[in-house]
Amino acid sequence: MTIETPGRAEIEAAASRLRGYVRRTPCIEIQGRDLGLEIDSVILKLELLQHTGSFKPRGAFNRVLAGVVPPAGLIAASGGNHAQAVAYAGTRLGIPTEIFVPETVPPIKLSRLRQYDAEVRLVGEYYDDAREASEVRAAATGAMVVHAYDQPDVVAGAGTLARELMSQVPDVDTVLVAVGGGGLMAGTASWAEGDFEVVAVEPESCPTLRSAIDAGERVEVEVGGLASDSLAARKIGSIAFAVAQQHVGQAVLVTDAAIRSAQVALWDRLRLIVEPGGAAALAALRAGAYVPAKGERVVALVCGANTDPGSLE
Amino acid sequence: MTIETPGRAEIEAAASRLRGYVRRTPCIEIQGRDLGLEIDSVILKLELLQHTGSFKPRGAFNRVLAGVVPPAGLIAASGGNHAQAVAYAGTRLGIPTEIFVPETVPPIKLSRLRQYDAEVRLVGEYYDDAREASEVRAAATGAMVVHAYDQPDVVAGAGTLARELMSQVPDVDTVLVAVGGGGLMAGTASWAEGDFEVVAVEPESCPTLRSAIDAGERVEVEVGGLASDSLAARKIGSIAFAVAQQHVGQAVLVTDAAIRSAQVALWDRLRLIVEPGGAAALAALRAGAYVPAKGERVVALVCGANTDPGSLE
Repeated sequence: MTIETPGRAEIEAAASRLRGYVRRTPCIEIQGRDLGLEIDSVILKLELLQHTGSFKPRGAFNRVLAGVVPPAGLIAASGGNHAQAVAYAGTRLGIPTEIFVPETVPPIKLSRLRQYDAEVRLVGEYYDDAREASEVRAAATGAMVVHAYDQPDVVAGAGTLARELMSQVPDVDTVLVAVGGGGLMAGTASWAEGDFEVVAVEPESCPTLRSAIDAGERVEVEVGGLASDSLAARKIGSIAFAVAQQHVGQAVLVTDAAIRSAQVALWDRLRLIVEPGGAAALAALRAGAYVPAKGERVVALVCGANTDPGSLE
Repeated sequence: MTIETPGRAEIEAAASRLRGYVRRTPCIEIQGRDLGLEIDSVILKLELLQHTGSFKPRGAFNRVLAGVVPPAGLIAASGGNHAQAVAYAGTRLGIPTEIFVPETVPPIKLSRLRQYDAEVRLVGEYYDDAREASEVRAAATGAMVVHAYDQPDVVAGAGTLARELMSQVPDVDTVLVAVGGGGLMAGTASWAEGDFEVVAVEPESCPTLRSAIDAGERVEVEVGGLASDSLAARKIGSIAFAVAQQHVGQAVLVTDAAIRSAQVALWDRLRLIVEPGGAAALAALRAGAYVPAKGERVVALVCGANTDPGSLE
């Protein structure tokens, strides 16, 4: 089976579609010492300031705007961030939307989700449980499925983040990106085309990409841990795995303790509330899971903020 | 008495001194509708991402680096943000530092202050009480007084924010800035030189500039309310008043309710934890205290983050 993966042309088209619907999020350069790093500086891409507090609207809007939406509207399943993004897109575009989320969704994500016009259904413990239920429902209604990561338009939408980043930091050498299902990683690596290296970062407790690389094929893994509300797909996406095999130099793992420590540092030194999945990329630098060369221009994507601020105290 | 006010040359010199000591903080453009505004968009300057969570290190470092520090080191008084900035500067530069803060300082500001090497003294209820105590002490020790706002080097340091902003948003028309003692407003207006308008924003509960404008001279006012931990000087600074008389087009007032509402909006729509004083400039737009013309490029300075995230729930 040939996997369709997006290239720069698809990402350029996505960027045109997304104009007016997503924010251009800023970068900030921070001295390494401020974040416990031995390198001179690191650049953070503050995608947590995106609509709904994560990068997910990029893929959601591109999927919806690139296709023809049936009368039944949109349907999606998500651990929380993609759910908010699709609900936001549906509300913004005036399209009926049905969202399936696992019962383990953090209360703050659920309450935000209920702010939108979408119908919300709680099913099962993990993302994949909600996804299966949503697929049964989609077959019945004919709604457009907006997948959380494994559709070319969703990946191309996520790739607009990398396109934007390169206009902001033209001399970027390396981008560290967290992996759950792998949509943001795949979009980033699809844009890179050798202009920069992509380092994929996963929690040890959700090693979907690492396991697939080791096995030479996509495999189901046990998932859990601190970042499981945003990074706990049980299997890496097919597009993400295909892209990673071609374009991703390293896939590294970080502990939950390293993720928590990165969250605390981002609050203490930068006054940013960042969810565990959003802090994973920075955690890989702090924990030494990826060690940049001297002078290397390194960007860590800070890709989500949907956590209860009280969880950091 | 002639008041010495800084100009662009002094601000340029400050920017050179501050290199490596302060962060270049980013801007983000947000659609007006996202923040309850009728204008197309507003640009937020995210100075809350500065070291210590406010703009204050700009003035503190410039004062210290522009002068000759005596053996007794540094001394400062502050409602909290300036205290952190001077303590941070003293620690970073290895200079002994003594800080006077009012007993009403919020716990989160006090605990952050205690992270640095500075000696911390708690005195009185308001900023001015702590300031008076610090002046007595400074006369005894001979330490360099780093004023929270009313020294030319402090104002010039704060002005580097406006210089940076103009390089980021060259077509800016209007900058809204919160006023307490007026250091940031004075620095911003001293840089402006007609390239953009400055709108000064004060809480109704701390109207030091408004009262001075109405009286035609600096007067003491009753201060209190939500933003009093950062904006409650009892009298506008002499430099700030001189600059405002020449360079500030409008001085507007906002209610505590409008400030709280702006804080909630910044968290809900942007995932930023902002202190009351840091949200005042945006509050003026949301409350209609300042109404931009169609197409006007408006920047609101988001200048501080030092609040307990729990206070927003």
